Amino acid sequence: MQSKIMKQTKESKKVHLEHLRHSAAHLLAAAVLELWPNAKNAIGPAIENGFYYDFDFDKTKISEVDFPNIEQKMRDLVKTWKSFQGTKVSQEQAKTHFQGNPYKQELIEEFSLEGKQLTTYTSGNFTDLCRGGHVDNPNQMLKYVKLLSVAGAYWRGDEKNAMLTRIYGTVFPTQAELDHYLWQIEEGEKRDHRKLGQKLDLFVIHDDIGKGLPLLTPKGTILRNEILNYERELEQESGFQEVWTPHIAKSDLYKRTGHWDHYRDVMYAPFGIEDETYVLKPMNCPHHYMIYASRPRSYRDLPMRLSEPGTCYRYEKSGELGGLVRVRALTIDDSHILMRDDQIDAEFGLCIGMVLKMFKAFQLNDYWVRLSLNDPADHIKYIADTATWEKAGRKLEAIVKSQKLNYELASGEASFYGPKIDFMVNDAIGRQWQMSTLQLDLFMAERLNLEYTDMDGTKKHPVILHRGLTGSLERTIGLLIEHFSGAFPVWLSPVQAMVIPISDRELGYAQTVHQELRQERFRVDLDDRSLSMQKRIREAELQKIPYMLIIGDREAKSGTIALRARGEKDEGTLKRSAFIKRLKKEVITKQG
Amino acid sequence: MQSKIMKQTKESKKVHLEHLRHSAAHLLAAAVLELWPNAKNAIGPAIENGFYYDFDFDKTKISEVDFPNIEQKMRDLVKTWKSFQGTKVSQEQAKTHFQGNPYKQELIEEFSLEGKQLTTYTSGNFTDLCRGGHVDNPNQMLKYVKLLSVAGAYWRGDEKNAMLTRIYGTVFPTQAELDHYLWQIEEGEKRDHRKLGQKLDLFVIHDDIGKGLPLLTPKGTILRNEILNYERELEQESGFQEVWTPHIAKSDLYKRTGHWDHYRDVMYAPFGIEDETYVLKPMNCPHHYMIYASRPRSYRDLPMRLSEPGTCYRYEKSGELGGLVRVRALTIDDSHILMRDDQIDAEFGLCIGMVLKMFKAFQLNDYWVRLSLNDPADHIKYIADTATWEKAGRKLEAIVKSQKLNYELASGEASFYGPKIDFMVNDAIGRQWQMSTLQLDLFMAERLNLEYTDMDGTKKHPVILHRGLTGSLERTIGLLIEHFSGAFPVWLSPVQAMVIPISDRELGYAQTVHQELRQERFRVDLDDRSLSMQKRIREAELQKIPYMLIIGDREAKSGTIALRARGEKDEGTLKRSAFIKRLKKEVITKQG
Repeated sequence: MQSKIMKQTKESKKVHLEHLRHSAAHLLAAAVLELWPNAKNAIGPAIENGFYYDFDFDKTKISEVDFPNIEQKMRDLVKTWKSFQGTKVSQEQAKTHFQGNPYKQELIEEFSLEGKQLTTYTSGNFTDLCRGGHVDNPNQMLKYVKLLSVAGAYWRGDEKNAMLTRIYGTVFPTQAELDHYLWQIEEGEKRDHRKLGQKLDLFVIHDDIGKGLPLLTPKGTILRNEILNYERELEQESGFQEVWTPHIAKSDLYKRTGHWDHYRDVMYAPFGIEDETYVLKPMNCPHHYMIYASRPRSYRDLPMRLSEPGTCYRYEKSGELGGLVRVRALTIDDSHILMRDDQIDAEFGLCIGMVLKMFKAFQLNDYWVRLSLNDPADHIKYIADTATWEKAGRKLEAIVKSQKLNYELASGEASFYGPKIDFMVNDAIGRQWQMSTLQLDLFMAERLNLEYTDMDGTKKHPVILHRGLTGSLERTIGLLIEHFSGAFPVWLSPVQAMVIPISDRELGYAQTVHQELRQERFRVDLDDRSLSMQKRIREAELQKIPYMLIIGDREAKSGTIALRARGEKDEGTLKRSAFIKRLKKEVITKQG
Repeated sequence: MQSKIMKQTKESKKVHLEHLRHSAAHLLAAAVLELWPNAKNAIGPAIENGFYYDFDFDKTKISEVDFPNIEQKMRDLVKTWKSFQGTKVSQEQAKTHFQGNPYKQELIEEFSLEGKQLTTYTSGNFTDLCRGGHVDNPNQMLKYVKLLSVAGAYWRGDEKNAMLTRIYGTVFPTQAELDHYLWQIEEGEKRDHRKLGQKLDLFVIHDDIGKGLPLLTPKGTILRNEILNYERELEQESGFQEVWTPHIAKSDLYKRTGHWDHYRDVMYAPFGIEDETYVLKPMNCPHHYMIYASRPRSYRDLPMRLSEPGTCYRYEKSGELGGLVRVRALTIDDSHILMRDDQIDAEFGLCIGMVLKMFKAFQLNDYWVRLSLNDPADHIKYIADTATWEKAGRKLEAIVKSQKLNYELASGEASFYGPKIDFMVNDAIGRQWQMSTLQLDLFMAERLNLEYTDMDGTKKHPVILHRGLTGSLERTIGLLIEHFSGAFPVWLSPVQAMVIPISDRELGYAQTVHQELRQERFRVDLDDRSLSMQKRIREAELQKIPYMLIIGDREAKSGTIALRARGEKDEGTLKRSAFIKRLKKEVITKQG
């Protein structure tokens, strides 16, 4: 019951925001058409975090320089906007009203062919073709609007069509919310993992390799390996068993699993080998099932927790790729737990515990879960079997309740083979990222005839829990770069300390310090370039290295170091052993 | 000079063995035609370790049961074989001689079309179409012949042709050598990694995934990870930097590198993504070069030792695939060292040191190196540039000499981009395996315009050392399974110890022992099944687990363990701490 109320509150807030944003799009179009009467307005939907409107300005170039002017016109116009008046219109009426606007003409014809009732909405002296969804008092509600950016966009996303001008904006119910969002954008740009990835030399996207296929440099690979090693530790404590599987399989396998029917759009094109057809794996699941299926299994073998950081390949449109966050090659820290019915609660509990522990290690303290269900009407995206979906959904809801997780229901977000618990985290500046996922699969074992012999000698199908700890190592590296703004905690830092001798006289001792720390397995560099100390300190700061060890005459004589922590003033002189102790503690506790 | 003599000796021994084997094939054909006058002989070449001859027996089924009979006939016939008499014959003479044998007729026509001089060779009353290459005194030399197996083989390897019967055999100059080889075969069958892989549950080849694509089970993955962790240790000591790269790239990249011209047969079929064409990577090199090329580099940055255990995909004919040793997915523990000219010796020295250290860890103490050069006439397989090939070859020969490696020259075995030092190891029963490879590449940096700024400010191309430590992780796992016959040293063993309580009364203490050892990060299992102690000990022996810890009443009371090492008698009672100390030492030293 509680969940239902929460859902309604969140849901109604979401709907309200959508109406607000869509209303603001109308206002933008009205202002633009007042200022450029020859411009033609195309479409203007609400989107995540705001809205846009596409215009055909013919030869006029619009840029952000025009925004103050447009925003002023929006503020003027909205004063007269008391409501949105909806009117049903015939095709003929609509065509007459939008005469001279080829985009609206095309939409009118299309909607009419589909047998839709056409409607227009009017506020002030602006009327748009629109199916509705607005706020009631635009003159009250549309106060905190801000235009954000301008970009080119093909009409209907098709590059064979005309290139239109898209103006993006946002709107919030209060000035404070708008200010916060604008701060988030500004702060987010400073932390953009694509910029920091280049500046800190963490990854490379090279046109000769291909789009959406990042290469990790030595420093980026340290991040990757530290995350993987930490996950391996968590898994070893919890009885997971690592496996290794290749990156391709016969396409026939994916016909058997259902990927071919429900997931083909995301899969790469198949290729031939002799008389067989192979394809890059979009998921690791079927490979793990084949390991399970390679021997007879008994109830004593369950739960069997197979895990693998397996790189999968998924097709994404090139326009949607970005840095590490939207890629075509993603490494899923994937586990498949094959278990008996009576083990479901314990195994979900185990995995939820691992997820929350990991969030702590990453200093991600703000999260909620989305209980992602199927859309029962969508048989293209989901296996059709209402009873099993309902059973699995009820089970998952009972689990998130008993684990006291703050959750929200979301229809149509499930995997094709089952509902899931998706963990959403907010980063240091409050932006939301999707991360861990725990999925309950009551279909696949039966479909692939995976079995175990139960205590009574009968054959049964195991239940499957699909677990992605970060979900995508690549996206998580991107998230962590932005979350920490590149200033990683010591355990994750590619370079943990930089030794900086003040002059050549201290070089010998600086090398001793450097060697000693490397012997202790810390990632320490020595900057012995003949640049000023200040310049070398500044560079280490720009590289966001946690510690600088300044070595002067006094330190060399006393066998100590002068410590300077990232972003802090000098901490004074320290014994080497004391610094090693401190570093060790910070690495083990994952703090600092 | 020394190398030349060595080369001649090895080379002449090799030629002699080939003549011996080919002569034995004649003898086999002679015997078969005496025994089955209607059989038709096709071809009979020398191969590695022996020879075969293909026959068309029409409807007669030949099996190993017939071997004593055939071998007896061979022994009888060879007494009359004093020599091989060569005779030049015309096409007409040859066709008459081999009338009724469609295989010989086809060969005669083909050779004649190619303008070749036809020859026949006769010994005793047997004549074959043959271009020569026999021993002088067959009656003396062909004493130690043994038939080995029989298999089906399509005429000329084409499945559209008739299926012939292939009889395999071998021959050696002495009885001792023959006996040793037969022992090797017998012993090799017992150690066959495909059989042991199944028995010890190390890997799975599943028809639904595909041919040549092994999946590593939890136990096989432990082997893989232990090898990789060990290699990472070696690399960290030596200043290597790990990177991570995806498994595909644009096919255009491979056109630029020359793979498309020189290596295409080994590459998978390309597949389309939007308007671009991609392909699975057959090597990691170009990906690593793109990381190098992503920033300006200076002489101070060199040598840059990038490394990655990167899984590559190479096409091999399905008929040639076998277990882990011939696969289509192979993980190369690959490094590319980009360096200045004056660093070549030191870097090869470093890598040779790593290779020899690794051989020790794997207890592979018998090795030699093959200095693999190009075939200057073959411009399909090799980049055409005689001067650079000669320079690189001379450099490598100087290096193997100065490193005092026992080496042999081999023409036509180089990579397409440079000559290489291939390390060949003999396993515990004396069979040879190809392992590490160090390749000198003077071509690729210039071809891809990889540069660094030298001390004097000029731009230069780095020299590249390609290093494969094991060359293929998969093949190495296969080799180690056979080398150790599955009885791995403790550091590699998937299960290092099995705790076996004698009865349920000791279960509590057995669990304590089990937990304590796991806490210490040892891979220890507990066998608490209600089977007799003897049966559980036998099973642990079959699984080749290094240690069994037998827990009886006395051990439970005194807090000790009764130790039994794999293949040994009971060692008596031991303190737990003493056993932990022993295990730690064995893991660290990689002995035991």
